[in-house]
Amino acid sequence: MERIDNKLLESILTEDIVTKLFKGNFGLEKENVRVSKDGKLSLTPHPAIFGDKLKNPYIKTDFSESQVEVITPVCNSIDELYDYIENLQNIVSLSIGEEYLWPQSNPPILPSNEEIPIAVFSEEGKEERLYREKLSEKYGRKKQLLSGIHYNFSFKEEFINSLYKSLGEGESLKEFKNKIYLKITRNFIKYRWFLIYLTGASPVFHETYLDRCTDDIQELADRSCYFKNMMSLRNSKWGYKNKEDYLVNYDSLEQYIGSIQRLINDGKLDNASEFYGPVRLKSTCKRCSQEKLMKDGIEYLEIRILDLNPLNKNGIFIEDLYLVHLFMIYMLFMKEGTLTESEQKIANINHKVATMAGRREDSFIYNNVGEKASFKEEALKIIDDLIDIVNKMDYKTDYLRKVIESAREKVLDVSKTYAAVITKEIIDSSYVSFHLNKAKDYYEESKRQDFSLIGYEDLELSTQILLKNAIKRGIGVEVLDREENFVRLKKDNKVEYVKQATKTSKDSYSTVLVMENKVVTKEVLKENGVRVPSGKNYNSIEDARADYELFKDKQIVVKPKSTNFGIGISIFKEEFSKGDFTRALEIAFENDKTALVEEFISGKEYRFLVIADEVVGILHRVPANVQGDGARTISELVKEKNKHPLRGKGYKTPLEKISLGEIEEMFLKAQGKNFDYVPKEGEIVYLRENSNISTGGDSIDFTDEMHESYKTMAIKSAKAAGATICGVDMMIQDIKVPLNESNYGIIELNFNPAIHIHCYPYIGKNRGAGDKVLDVLFGK
Amino acid sequence: MERIDNKLLESILTEDIVTKLFKGNFGLEKENVRVSKDGKLSLTPHPAIFGDKLKNPYIKTDFSESQVEVITPVCNSIDELYDYIENLQNIVSLSIGEEYLWPQSNPPILPSNEEIPIAVFSEEGKEERLYREKLSEKYGRKKQLLSGIHYNFSFKEEFINSLYKSLGEGESLKEFKNKIYLKITRNFIKYRWFLIYLTGASPVFHETYLDRCTDDIQELADRSCYFKNMMSLRNSKWGYKNKEDYLVNYDSLEQYIGSIQRLINDGKLDNASEFYGPVRLKSTCKRCSQEKLMKDGIEYLEIRILDLNPLNKNGIFIEDLYLVHLFMIYMLFMKEGTLTESEQKIANINHKVATMAGRREDSFIYNNVGEKASFKEEALKIIDDLIDIVNKMDYKTDYLRKVIESAREKVLDVSKTYAAVITKEIIDSSYVSFHLNKAKDYYEESKRQDFSLIGYEDLELSTQILLKNAIKRGIGVEVLDREENFVRLKKDNKVEYVKQATKTSKDSYSTVLVMENKVVTKEVLKENGVRVPSGKNYNSIEDARADYELFKDKQIVVKPKSTNFGIGISIFKEEFSKGDFTRALEIAFENDKTALVEEFISGKEYRFLVIADEVVGILHRVPANVQGDGARTISELVKEKNKHPLRGKGYKTPLEKISLGEIEEMFLKAQGKNFDYVPKEGEIVYLRENSNISTGGDSIDFTDEMHESYKTMAIKSAKAAGATICGVDMMIQDIKVPLNESNYGIIELNFNPAIHIHCYPYIGKNRGAGDKVLDVLFGK
Repeated sequence: MERIDNKLLESILTEDIVTKLFKGNFGLEKENVRVSKDGKLSLTPHPAIFGDKLKNPYIKTDFSESQVEVITPVCNSIDELYDYIENLQNIVSLSIGEEYLWPQSNPPILPSNEEIPIAVFSEEGKEERLYREKLSEKYGRKKQLLSGIHYNFSFKEEFINSLYKSLGEGESLKEFKNKIYLKITRNFIKYRWFLIYLTGASPVFHETYLDRCTDDIQELADRSCYFKNMMSLRNSKWGYKNKEDYLVNYDSLEQYIGSIQRLINDGKLDNASEFYGPVRLKSTCKRCSQEKLMKDGIEYLEIRILDLNPLNKNGIFIEDLYLVHLFMIYMLFMKEGTLTESEQKIANINHKVATMAGRREDSFIYNNVGEKASFKEEALKIIDDLIDIVNKMDYKTDYLRKVIESAREKVLDVSKTYAAVITKEIIDSSYVSFHLNKAKDYYEESKRQDFSLIGYEDLELSTQILLKNAIKRGIGVEVLDREENFVRLKKDNKVEYVKQATKTSKDSYSTVLVMENKVVTKEVLKENGVRVPSGKNYNSIEDARADYELFKDKQIVVKPKSTNFGIGISIFKEEFSKGDFTRALEIAFENDKTALVEEFISGKEYRFLVIADEVVGILHRVPANVQGDGARTISELVKEKNKHPLRGKGYKTPLEKISLGEIEEMFLKAQGKNFDYVPKEGEIVYLRENSNISTGGDSIDFTDEMHESYKTMAIKSAKAAGATICGVDMMIQDIKVPLNESNYGIIELNFNPAIHIHCYPYIGKNRGAGDKVLDVLFGK
Repeated sequence: MERIDNKLLESILTEDIVTKLFKGNFGLEKENVRVSKDGKLSLTPHPAIFGDKLKNPYIKTDFSESQVEVITPVCNSIDELYDYIENLQNIVSLSIGEEYLWPQSNPPILPSNEEIPIAVFSEEGKEERLYREKLSEKYGRKKQLLSGIHYNFSFKEEFINSLYKSLGEGESLKEFKNKIYLKITRNFIKYRWFLIYLTGASPVFHETYLDRCTDDIQELADRSCYFKNMMSLRNSKWGYKNKEDYLVNYDSLEQYIGSIQRLINDGKLDNASEFYGPVRLKSTCKRCSQEKLMKDGIEYLEIRILDLNPLNKNGIFIEDLYLVHLFMIYMLFMKEGTLTESEQKIANINHKVATMAGRREDSFIYNNVGEKASFKEEALKIIDDLIDIVNKMDYKTDYLRKVIESAREKVLDVSKTYAAVITKEIIDSSYVSFHLNKAKDYYEESKRQDFSLIGYEDLELSTQILLKNAIKRGIGVEVLDREENFVRLKKDNKVEYVKQATKTSKDSYSTVLVMENKVVTKEVLKENGVRVPSGKNYNSIEDARADYELFKDKQIVVKPKSTNFGIGISIFKEEFSKGDFTRALEIAFENDKTALVEEFISGKEYRFLVIADEVVGILHRVPANVQGDGARTISELVKEKNKHPLRGKGYKTPLEKISLGEIEEMFLKAQGKNFDYVPKEGEIVYLRENSNISTGGDSIDFTDEMHESYKTMAIKSAKAAGATICGVDMMIQDIKVPLNESNYGIIELNFNPAIHIHCYPYIGKNRGAGDKVLDVLFGK
């Protein structure tokens, strides 16, 4: 603990603000190049679904048209951040058609330099294009394809304020903040070798990157190569670096800006963005001048040394994010120290050792007093300090200890480092196939998570889908009230409030009220020539009896106005006497003070999702069932069916697992069956009467099979109520027979139709309902 | 009962359709001329508030610009009909400024013929104007000013169907229906003298009507005159009649149409509308040709003999409507009979007897076999038949018997007839003052009913007001769901659905959802620079405590997220310690799992009703209170205050009566007072803590007193939420001091603001909020 500023540490501990130390402002920027299924750099354009790359805040291109960059919004915690990067990973990898995201910082099989496509921009992006062309000339396009992760971080204002109150020495808050971040930066520069060792994950590259495998490179079978003991090509001299290791002054913000400016004046850099240091001091103003940074002060730090980790779908393990954060805290807690030019040069040497020779058992670095020291021993000292810090703070102690102990293992056993593991795996298979297999696995994993927005699984699936679709298009999303599924969407200057995915500004309040009121809905539909179960409400049995004549030649349902589980309902499909009618009324009136006599409409029920005068999807629901194979029991068939990836428990998935409970048992018993019954091949056995998805029912898409006439009627019904977004429940006798006056009937209009059911049916296609809602809100 | 067709009567009784006999299609058309406060015919234009007289279906002008005609929609029962005519009466009499509705069929003081203004029409109404000019030439304008009531009636289709099934003889349903109505018509023509006797109410007229009081006329002091024994001038030869009593054939519809056509061909009538018979056969197609009537068949009957009854505000007693309906039923139940030309002439003689000599004790008529018979005895025979019919039907028997017995009294004692009573009253005062006093009384009565829509008192007051305002403008109204206050408004081709008066199509669903969600509302307001109580929600006491620093220099409220009656709330208006804060949090968390720490905003609360970017009304509510006079006790003062016409019980009125219950007693006790305490002159004593109107609070309008800056802010707040109709609840320190950053705060946005409170405040003007809503829905 000799390096720790104990006064500082204690002041934080007593200030009871440890929690705030872990609630910072976190952001990630991650690049991946797109590759074809054979591991070659994709030459196709950035997918149109992501919209204008200048305007989508989440999904852009970096240098190359083939290089997708995802950017999380500012998150309050690492957990939130990790969820976001995972969502972006899932969204992008499922939206790039037949291609994969290359999970490695080092590029896949590359074409010639000139064939690498620079990102294409609209007229508005002219400068972006010019800048990229300059880079291309100066560094070559291949180098620009090295992809990685930038980690942006700042403490919460409240935390800085607390520190300022207890440690400020008369300077302004801004000056104090600059001081804090500069201290962290100086220390980070000195000790970054530690993180490179632990996170470096680009040890092998493809021959096409350097155009040849040189003498000191081990060549592998598939034309890939590696430097022995390398951790990170990307951080090495062959990586994404300036022509030289420029020395920059970090003593004060003014000096920092001054030294960058000198590099620009000397023609070494084109602008400040071209300074590829391991860490950058930033203001939240993007593309702002250095003067602006001076004025605003340092608002966050950008850590630039993290490789894509191909061992993780998201390019980084969450444990490593915690490790980085702990490391930053450690840098904060260190005693004040200088970063002279010579110290900076030492740090650069140590950086090289970590990238190139980190895996040598006997590698050494220069310690902070400038003496040679064992790499391993110096790293262990840091590990011990980190453990000490964690022990002193009452925050996720066990978890954080594990994170550090895992780092310790990597220090003690170099074969456990990501670089070593990756190298070994590549030697065992090949550079391309190792990464392609990973990419495929990750694609499948994303696919399994398609219906959920990680970190927001408490939201309704419809809302999760809507948000994912919004993010994909670059529509800003914000959850205003999680319990209510209330979100705000923003694009350019347009703001839309949406609740439960389909309650939007596009429907007027009175339209919703019409749909909400069953009596009014029927009235409105009837007036518009739509067939609804005709019927009447009665408040007295006498009034109802008097209308016997009206109904006696029809098929009718007699029911209480409000009914649960079909209690009190009588159905007459054939002729019935006044006595029968009276008895049915008596039963209905036992259950409610209002009874309904309604025409019985036969057929199957279909849900039409109508959005802006278009039928987006049509769904029919079937009660929980299994289909026999002549061999397995019902129990076994249910178990098998429940393995379906869309089936889960507790409405977290589009379909629910079928239960083998009492109700199912009773229902089978009524059919003379039990769970051990072996259905014949092709025999369908139902386990429930109701077709609810929530009790294991199947949803089957009929959008393409439905006769057009019913779609036209569904649209007409929605229009009658004035609805933009509407679930139309229609009874249909035969979906292949054109609609006529008596073979269908509208049961209900739903003003808050679920969209997820049309995206993830048990049988059928994803109808992209979320995108349709967004089309209506923001245009196509 | 010799005249009754017993087979017919029995068939109806056994068919169990008596109820249907009383549920018909009823309509009234009623004219009143407008008069100035001194009883002279008004020469002002038809009030603009009623809109285009061609398009307002409820309120038009008849012949003269000064002659308001109100028209009920088709009603299902007499009760419904009577409510409607009363509403129209109330609406019109309160919308004609400084004038009154003249309650008498005979005109008020008239100017010269040429000065009587013919109704003015837009270009569209050219034909209406021309027709009136023709009438003016042919009959003189004065005659056209005779006002009366037309009673439109038909049986329900279901009833006709039932009759058709049991009595049809092979003819088509249409033919059968024609037969039924023609039979009723023939009988009605024969026996109409009976109704004229009982309803005639125009026995006296003003000299200016005939320009002089002739020899056989009794002249009264104020230049009014009467014929001795007259029941109805309007139905007499001086009344609203054709040049001759044209005989028309009622044997079949064809012959009826034929005989009218002959009169037209002979130049005696200009068109069918000019046939002023006592009853007309009509199809529902207005202004349609006689061919159309032939094609459609008779759809209803128009009874034209009813005078305005000045003894009733609505121009007719509901008992008389029941009497007329019973009489029509009686005409139906009569045995089939002819109506030969000579029978028709006899009927016309009897008509004259009833109008001119009905009140002579010894007057006689010709009975249906053509013999002279005592008027009284013949009338009593009808009375007996009516009683018999009522006794045979199980429907409102007691009530209907009373109606008939009251008619019997009028038959037995001619001084009890309306005509006699009116004549006597006029002789006691004068023609003009009698009717003017009645008109004034009726105006006052209408005023007391201003806030309610008769027959719809179960609706919320806001909805009642909206509907009344709509009717006034000629917007078609329909209540779709009474319990839900769900109405449909129609004008021209525009349809609007409105729930609870202010839930309309003009607000989008998402706007409503924003306002419904308090957290989101605050967020949106804050973003738009509107001051809201800043604050945070906490799910744990630890999180909340950690934010002590954030709040410690502010005035705050600590409260459970949901709270009733202020339980669990702590308010800190001055400095407080972390210990105080913790204790307050503990109390809040005892009452809810979420606690709110909110800035305390001082001041008084005002409700701003914002409609379409305009502040329509501003209201402040004060708890139930009395102001002392130094003499009376609190009990006495409350009793006095409760006499206010706006105060009632059970939310049927804009204000509630103050209770003298336990809560009030306790509240006074806390002040060291009781109900017998005599407050000093000017002393205000509060009886409640809460300012709810429902517990006797006062509402005070501040629309004109409020500084403009707060109105601007209210509009800004509504705009922030995107609301068209919005109740903005604002805390204000001093309404005279311009708004600044800290002297106000928005507490809540309400998406369903009541409008009635702004129309009928305890102190202040009616702000016409219903009209503002209609302006938004249908344009001004």
